[in-house]
Amino acid sequence: MEIEEVKPGDIEERSFEMISEELGDMELIPGTEPIVKRCIHTSADFDYGKNLVFSEDVVSKGMEAIRKGASIVTDTQMGKAGINKKKLAQYGGEVYCFMSDEDVAAEAIKNGTTRATASMNKAAKRGEKLIFAIGNAPTALIQLHKLIQKGDINPELIIAVPVGFVNVVQSKEMILSLENTPYIVAKGRKGGSNIAACICNALLYMMD
Amino acid sequence: MEIEEVKPGDIEERSFEMISEELGDMELIPGTEPIVKRCIHTSADFDYGKNLVFSEDVVSKGMEAIRKGASIVTDTQMGKAGINKKKLAQYGGEVYCFMSDEDVAAEAIKNGTTRATASMNKAAKRGEKLIFAIGNAPTALIQLHKLIQKGDINPELIIAVPVGFVNVVQSKEMILSLENTPYIVAKGRKGGSNIAACICNALLYMMD
Repeated sequence: MEIEEVKPGDIEERSFEMISEELGDMELIPGTEPIVKRCIHTSADFDYGKNLVFSEDVVSKGMEAIRKGASIVTDTQMGKAGINKKKLAQYGGEVYCFMSDEDVAAEAIKNGTTRATASMNKAAKRGEKLIFAIGNAPTALIQLHKLIQKGDINPELIIAVPVGFVNVVQSKEMILSLENTPYIVAKGRKGGSNIAACICNALLYMMD
Repeated sequence: MEIEEVKPGDIEERSFEMISEELGDMELIPGTEPIVKRCIHTSADFDYGKNLVFSEDVVSKGMEAIRKGASIVTDTQMGKAGINKKKLAQYGGEVYCFMSDEDVAAEAIKNGTTRATASMNKAAKRGEKLIFAIGNAPTALIQLHKLIQKGDINPELIIAVPVGFVNVVQSKEMILSLENTPYIVAKGRKGGSNIAACICNALLYMMD
């Protein structure tokens, strides 16, 4: 297999061409294609052609929230590192990850929860427009579900893509059951901080 | 599907139990199991049970390099964010990512290369023990291969796990052709910054 000569600035475009070719005539929900393709670009895993679930009008709602200055909360430093923070800042938003905060660690120990649970509580107290990009911790989704039910938080969008085994599938089903919260969910076990970040970036790049 | 009650401190252990159960009697190379399982843990993708290729004694060589204070070079800020830097620092190593450095950007523009290529050149000038954890850019691997052939660099270990489409498969084959460089390669298109980081962490946790 020969090295393909592609100019640095053209690599991403060529990658997306290859993804489109291989997807062939797989039916994607109109308007969600850039998100699905970017997830495949990030993972080389065509399962994302089938496992992403979008609530009604979530793409336009997500972009509208960003346009109005919503910030993004992640559950890992990796997720935060992967989001295009410069582009988000153009609209006034920031990326927060509370996982390493001392008050979060202390609350988690006090309550016997994960730090992800405690960091969702911290987010709920901010009273600002928030998008949640959760690529790691099912407990973050479980806590978000609880906070929403109690009326303590009203996210602009939940990107629910934890990866793994313990309660991952279940926590995503809880988000899928929400009726008034916009969501993008990767059904099943797959996802990750890279997927959470790339969905945020897909939204940002669609706004250009 | 009910939520499984698992204490925060036990979630990772329970995940690895589930992975071991599902792997069943798939044959893994002795000594590489913690790495393979951590890649599956990070991705929920059992393909990593089959696509990881290890050069001879690479696990002990990688741990030995860390023990002697090797630093790790990544090709993304996400990869850097995901590596357990505290644990690496116990042995004297640091994690570098040169991708956002101004001199790297300038060299890339001057030479018409990717920034990943330029950042491998920057790494080669450091003259210290280095492990490369490449989860994104095939061009980083292609340049490392060239620098090794020219005798300009002698990596302690190359973790070659870029993800994607353009030249990803080919660049990994180039690393697999190296005779005197320890490597861990995810054959095929899969990989990612998360996989690169988790392989580093698997090595670090095996040293405890």
